[in-house]
Amino acid sequence: MKCKQYFDVKKDYRSRCPISLTLDLLGDRWSLLILRDMMFAGKRHFREFLQSDEGIASNILAERLSRLVEAGILTKSDDPTHLQKAIYSLTPMGLDLLPALAQIGIWGRKHMPVTSESAAMAGKLAKEGDRLIAELTAKLKREHLAQH
Amino acid sequence: MKCKQYFDVKKDYRSRCPISLTLDLLGDRWSLLILRDMMFAGKRHFREFLQSDEGIASNILAERLSRLVEAGILTKSDDPTHLQKAIYSLTPMGLDLLPALAQIGIWGRKHMPVTSESAAMAGKLAKEGDRLIAELTAKLKREHLAQH
Repeated sequence: MKCKQYFDVKKDYRSRCPISLTLDLLGDRWSLLILRDMMFAGKRHFREFLQSDEGIASNILAERLSRLVEAGILTKSDDPTHLQKAIYSLTPMGLDLLPALAQIGIWGRKHMPVTSESAAMAGKLAKEGDRLIAELTAKLKREHLAQH
Repeated sequence: MKCKQYFDVKKDYRSRCPISLTLDLLGDRWSLLILRDMMFAGKRHFREFLQSDEGIASNILAERLSRLVEAGILTKSDDPTHLQKAIYSLTPMGLDLLPALAQIGIWGRKHMPVTSESAAMAGKLAKEGDRLIAELTAKLKREHLAQH
């Protein structure tokens, strides 16, 4: 499945290079952190993303979430357990970003001033990446795709 | 080796998460494209980066290159074959970004409106990622690290 935002809507892109197109969509400082929160911290609700350590502003969070939904990376639906809340789910396209996020985390753990607590998951990924990514993908598929 | 920019200079970061720290440094729309040009297109000179399809402005390119040098991801030195030119090289820290860039390219090839020509390398990476990354890393090590 290809990204809706680029196929349904005529949109500017800098080139047709796959890396450049991906950065056109996700190369800001926040979008991948929202996906990180969903993949590695199990977050699904607006308020949960807002509480992450990086302190995203609520207007930026709202804009990024709707852009990710528009692109076909997330879906937004009513949370059956909370009548007034929306729940966000990863689509298969969103799930496919897990290996890229894992590699970004592995690089950061090796070269940036992480704390041991913050780098626990990246440490596991560095040691047993393929197996852990497969396991996590299966878990996320059960939790995110089952409802759709 | 850890990133100089964060250890030599006190610098703002949003959190100590390895993914967030990496995006603090590289999460703009241009830095990773410069690294892509070095890794997959063999570019080493200012003018070569300027000629890429995305059309980076020369002031932005200059700023990003010096930030990458300051961070310890690239080195800049006099090109022995061109007296007036500087040549940029990847450091081991820069080379370590290859798997992350490969995964970003693989995702883009699958989900974005790439052309077959622009996606040739990403296609190869999707098919035989680990072997090709090892091969490319060895080649880049010979070309970039030999001079230092």
